[in-house]
Amino acid sequence: MNSPDTNDSHTETNARTRTETHTNEGSAIVPMKWVGPIHVTGNTVNDKVSVPLATFESPLWPSAQRGARVSAQVENGIVATLVDERMTRSILLEADDAPTAFKAVQRLSAEFDQLQDVASASSRFARLIGLNHEITGNLLFLRFEFATGDAAGHNMVTLASDHLMDHVLTTVPGLRYGSISGNYCTDKKATAINGILGRGKNVVTEILLPADLVDDQLHTTAAKIAELNVHKNLIGTMLAGGIRSANAHYANLLLAFYLATGQDAANIVEGSQGITHAEDRDGDLYFSCTLPNIIVGTTGSAKNNGFVADNLGRLGCRDEHQPGANARRLAVLAAATVLCGELSLMAAQTNPGELMKAHVKYERRPTT
Amino acid sequence: MNSPDTNDSHTETNARTRTETHTNEGSAIVPMKWVGPIHVTGNTVNDKVSVPLATFESPLWPSAQRGARVSAQVENGIVATLVDERMTRSILLEADDAPTAFKAVQRLSAEFDQLQDVASASSRFARLIGLNHEITGNLLFLRFEFATGDAAGHNMVTLASDHLMDHVLTTVPGLRYGSISGNYCTDKKATAINGILGRGKNVVTEILLPADLVDDQLHTTAAKIAELNVHKNLIGTMLAGGIRSANAHYANLLLAFYLATGQDAANIVEGSQGITHAEDRDGDLYFSCTLPNIIVGTTGSAKNNGFVADNLGRLGCRDEHQPGANARRLAVLAAATVLCGELSLMAAQTNPGELMKAHVKYERRPTT
Amino acid sequence: MNSPDTNDSHTETNARTRTETHTNEGSAIVPMKWVGPIHVTGNTVNDKVSVPLATFESPLWPSAQRGARVSAQVENGIVATLVDERMTRSILLEADDAPTAFKAVQRLSAEFDQLQDVASASSRFARLIGLNHEITGNLLFLRFEFATGDAAGHNMVTLASDHLMDHVLTTVPGLRYGSISGNYCTDKKATAINGILGRGKNVVTEILLPADLVDDQLHTTAAKIAELNVHKNLIGTMLAGGIRSANAHYANLLLAFYLATGQDAANIVEGSQGITHAEDRDGDLYFSCTLPNIIVGTTGSAKNNGFVADNLGRLGCRDEHQPGANARRLAVLAAATVLCGELSLMAAQTNPGELMKAHVKYERRPTT
Amino acid sequence: MNSPDTNDSHTETNARTRTETHTNEGSAIVPMKWVGPIHVTGNTVNDKVSVPLATFESPLWPSAQRGARVSAQVENGIVATLVDERMTRSILLEADDAPTAFKAVQRLSAEFDQLQDVASASSRFARLIGLNHEITGNLLFLRFEFATGDAAGHNMVTLASDHLMDHVLTTVPGLRYGSISGNYCTDKKATAINGILGRGKNVVTEILLPADLVDDQLHTTAAKIAELNVHKNLIGTMLAGGIRSANAHYANLLLAFYLATGQDAANIVEGSQGITHAEDRDGDLYFSCTLPNIIVGTTGSAKNNGFVADNLGRLGCRDEHQPGANARRLAVLAAATVLCGELSLMAAQTNPGELMKAHVKYERRPTT
Repeated sequence: MNSPDTNDSHTETNARTRTETHTNEGSAIVPMKWVGPIHVTGNTVNDKVSVPLATFESPLWPSAQRGARVSAQVENGIVATLVDERMTRSILLEADDAPTAFKAVQRLSAEFDQLQDVASASSRFARLIGLNHEITGNLLFLRFEFATGDAAGHNMVTLASDHLMDHVLTTVPGLRYGSISGNYCTDKKATAINGILGRGKNVVTEILLPADLVDDQLHTTAAKIAELNVHKNLIGTMLAGGIRSANAHYANLLLAFYLATGQDAANIVEGSQGITHAEDRDGDLYFSCTLPNIIVGTTGSAKNNGFVADNLGRLGCRDEHQPGANARRLAVLAAATVLCGELSLMAAQTNPGELMKAHVKYERRPTT
Repeated sequence: MNSPDTNDSHTETNARTRTETHTNEGSAIVPMKWVGPIHVTGNTVNDKVSVPLATFESPLWPSAQRGARVSAQVENGIVATLVDERMTRSILLEADDAPTAFKAVQRLSAEFDQLQDVASASSRFARLIGLNHEITGNLLFLRFEFATGDAAGHNMVTLASDHLMDHVLTTVPGLRYGSISGNYCTDKKATAINGILGRGKNVVTEILLPADLVDDQLHTTAAKIAELNVHKNLIGTMLAGGIRSANAHYANLLLAFYLATGQDAANIVEGSQGITHAEDRDGDLYFSCTLPNIIVGTTGSAKNNGFVADNLGRLGCRDEHQPGANARRLAVLAAATVLCGELSLMAAQTNPGELMKAHVKYERRPTT
Repeated sequence: MNSPDTNDSHTETNARTRTETHTNEGSAIVPMKWVGPIHVTGNTVNDKVSVPLATFESPLWPSAQRGARVSAQVENGIVATLVDERMTRSILLEADDAPTAFKAVQRLSAEFDQLQDVASASSRFARLIGLNHEITGNLLFLRFEFATGDAAGHNMVTLASDHLMDHVLTTVPGLRYGSISGNYCTDKKATAINGILGRGKNVVTEILLPADLVDDQLHTTAAKIAELNVHKNLIGTMLAGGIRSANAHYANLLLAFYLATGQDAANIVEGSQGITHAEDRDGDLYFSCTLPNIIVGTTGSAKNNGFVADNLGRLGCRDEHQPGANARRLAVLAAATVLCGELSLMAAQTNPGELMKAHVKYERRPTT
Repeated sequence: MNSPDTNDSHTETNARTRTETHTNEGSAIVPMKWVGPIHVTGNTVNDKVSVPLATFESPLWPSAQRGARVSAQVENGIVATLVDERMTRSILLEADDAPTAFKAVQRLSAEFDQLQDVASASSRFARLIGLNHEITGNLLFLRFEFATGDAAGHNMVTLASDHLMDHVLTTVPGLRYGSISGNYCTDKKATAINGILGRGKNVVTEILLPADLVDDQLHTTAAKIAELNVHKNLIGTMLAGGIRSANAHYANLLLAFYLATGQDAANIVEGSQGITHAEDRDGDLYFSCTLPNIIVGTTGSAKNNGFVADNLGRLGCRDEHQPGANARRLAVLAAATVLCGELSLMAAQTNPGELMKAHVKYERRPTT
């Protein structure tokens, strides 16, 4: 019997054979434009930066551009605070019973430094920084949290978790392999755990806009935006049965940013869970977007070539820094971009008919 | 004062000026391969079809290919049942108070045929087929459900909702414009409402695999897959605080399929909410993926050119049919593709170390 | 082999024998006080009514009393709008496969009037008014919606669903019994479906308080309450991973009201899911509580005797009316009571230290 | 202007005056029976104990009794593992902006021992054992975790949080009072955070039943129960949009147990969130209930008198022990009781018609 991988590649070859007359096999092409410059300040980035957005939704560019333009007109621009970063993988173990699972947790917590050694031995960059667990019946979910340098870290944490799984199975009695991923990570699913425990970069972006700028550039008022945010993003999403999410269209911006920077764009599923909060401060607008789960990297094979390498370089995310600095910069730029687009769409939706008009003008369909 | 759109395009021009030396502005490029043929039967597609997947995650191709290969080895292949289709937009209205909102709902429900006329007048293809509502305090959410032919329909339903908004505001007293989208739709957010009330195409895919095929091709057993599905996809996701979702990596497959067919890939946020259900039937494997929210279209400007038009054509989704038939075919092919990848990854995760080995082999990072 | 029920009662006798020296077997006793009168107007109740609250949390009485007092000081008091009522039970069926399940759904939808006849034959009061369904793999969930007169209806809908189950199994091929309850109902669990599709009475309560009353009686401002509601009830609950819920302590009020009126108080689980919405209207306070899932009844064995019968009688919920009128009145009184307590606690929490002081004063622990 | 409390008590007196002819003001009475003995072993309780259940749902007693009877027939009975305990309160602060909130978090984390001192000074029993936080825009949620001895701890943690709030506001610049409770605790709401971070006692209960016992006593098979659990509790609840919950009727058992032991029964809202997991082990039944959020106490004013004191005493929960031991015993007994009722109902639902027959026999309405 051949290994699955051998079979896979054989079949893949066959598939290619079957389709060899198709010249379009090579790539999907998504239109891309640069938007900006966005003015960003804070604990990670202090710069004016244009960002690339790849999307089939052409109204997204002018929408984000409007936000960028506004950011350039206030002193501190968008203040972006990176408050956390970690990447996770949960393994699933079957214990003989809950007492065995509980003993295992107690032991592994006490021997956390050993786990750290195992993780560090698996990779130059992976560092185990946290351990969460949950016992349900005889099932034991262990959720490992890692620092992963400039990598998004999917691969790194799986490799480390493979090593940790081996270590746990050989040192702790009464446990059996369940799965290398127990969906308690959680990767590319909308859940509550990622926001509560942390996964990816957690970035809060804020901007404070004088009343006249809100009027001139956004054609609305702070009161209207704050009210719309409560009615639509908070109450509307809550009624729809949303989970830890209250925004108009983070998904659109993140998708475009991720595609343009070579990220695994399926991470928009959890990335788009975030909270828009706005306040009317005596006519001025306080507007913030909190994105607890931005998962981006600046290293890895897909990042070294072609448009991705170019774009990352132009964003200032391929410079020589301490490991992690480039990825943090990229995450903050992603978050600032989200604010630009969110602010613009929220402003548009305060005015009857404006969204549709913009879409007709740009000949494409509306978002959100 | 200029219109926002005018401003936007001016600023956009400026941004382009600033960046004009960058030759890569034109597009993001995502590697694409064809996988298949996938054997699909059921109430919509009866065919063997190869499908394009655009992804930076190279292990996805052999993974999906393994599922496709298996589908070709059983008589009915993947049985795909399309059980529903509709596209939605919720508008938000502010009423004087809840009694006013309640009266409005009663009246609009009674005059549903008038609403249908308004919707039909807005577009050649949009047909209003349902109306949901929810009252919270003095806020009224009206959720319109439409048939949209071969279009995904974002644009169509927004245009129709604009007309419906005007109609409601002019005919029903005591209501004011809130928002053209109240997040009760729900577009590109993970919520419960889309699955419960319907949004997009709802497709159930099933396959029944003899025990020896499970052993030969998937290197596992039906019992192991069924158990893993309960532990990981159902219990693991539930513990993570997931909402109406129990699967390993629908998001990966949908993203790749959507990118390769010119879809608005941000719709993977709700599209990836779905349930994998597996049973050990005396050693044979029953495996199913239910995707209630597949949002795809085969018409629109992005669909008529280049690789998208080519790919849709090759998939048989640009033939002359009754409106809607091409989009239904595309949705079913998306769902069948998801089953291929889900089955393969679930099989891999039943075996310690297999996922990592596959990723090392394909030199890319693991998924889920 | 004895029937389970026989066994059960035998064992129960044994248990009683073992415990026969305990004189306290008869009942749990929960302190009860009447609060009010609450001034209620709207489409169901126009009256000033005192309500009984049974609770171990003594601060609940003065808290609710403060809300009641305020209601009496504005012209329309609390405006309560009953916008929907229905009781549900979902049965679970296993189909041969999804195509079979889909055919069954199409047939049962077409023969809805037959289903109505079956339901009506099972009970004098049960009327089938709606049918929802969901197909996942080969599983078919049918969710029946009923009118149940003055009964909460748990029993009635189970009996009717038993008959409907028999009907479905004998008339539709390819289906097998799964469960009389598929948790898609949903009974006594916090889910999204009950609010979205309806279960129990859906009551919106609103009050409009002049600024000076807010100051005099609640010692706060409309702006403070509106802001607290956004920060705590909406954002705080969303961050906690709450589902369709944004309030401070509906559960406390509902529990006390349900216990005092002989309800099945486990229904506070879904009953406490509801949304508080507040607005600062130029200094005046608009305050509303929307409770979509109030499940109460005024008939049934527990309602005819002792304090329950007395309390229901005093509430005006045992008069001769069309079936359903008494239960609707009771639901509206429950909702109005919730508003009284919610308003009072929200006001208290705008002021540092006030909650704790109230609890120290009343020598009991704080709520929420 | 009078204080609100003074006003409250005045008005309350008026209310009493109005209703003074009603002799039933004193108390609500809920029928109570003892069920058992339940055989419990594990890290907290090793005993055979009968438990009181107060409920209007008379079928609950024989249902729980059947589970108890089964527990007495296997060697270890129900194995209950208490895996965690803590009580929480989240305070809400408004910061000048996110950077200020972030600095505050860093400082408070570094000065955790000072926070512990503040908490300890507020109460003889409260000990601060953990601190979680979340920043959203300029809002800062601090979630304090406490050990609370034998008290459920609502009051204790609010008092401690009041002190902590004062400490934070006086020592950390740029913060303002938001609320003593930010709904990030979360008290009496169904959310994800309590299970993920912990709130209350987390108890896993398990039982292993030989095939013949399943047949004789439960009239079903392990395979049927395991399958029903997947279809109904896991898939059904997931489809309904449930959050971290997969069970048939924990709420019923907890309500009855809480009422009979003088608990704040509104805590069934989060308490009823838990996962039933069952396996067919070669015909034997593995059945487990995991309840992460049991909130019970054995001290406090309501616990010292009447039936509550009697019941707690009879349960062995008023003996002289280290602080916390009595409450842990009570939590484990609650969890074991839940397993008894859950097992019995799940068994009943595997058989068509059995649930309804039981309810007809006991002349009351069905549960779940």
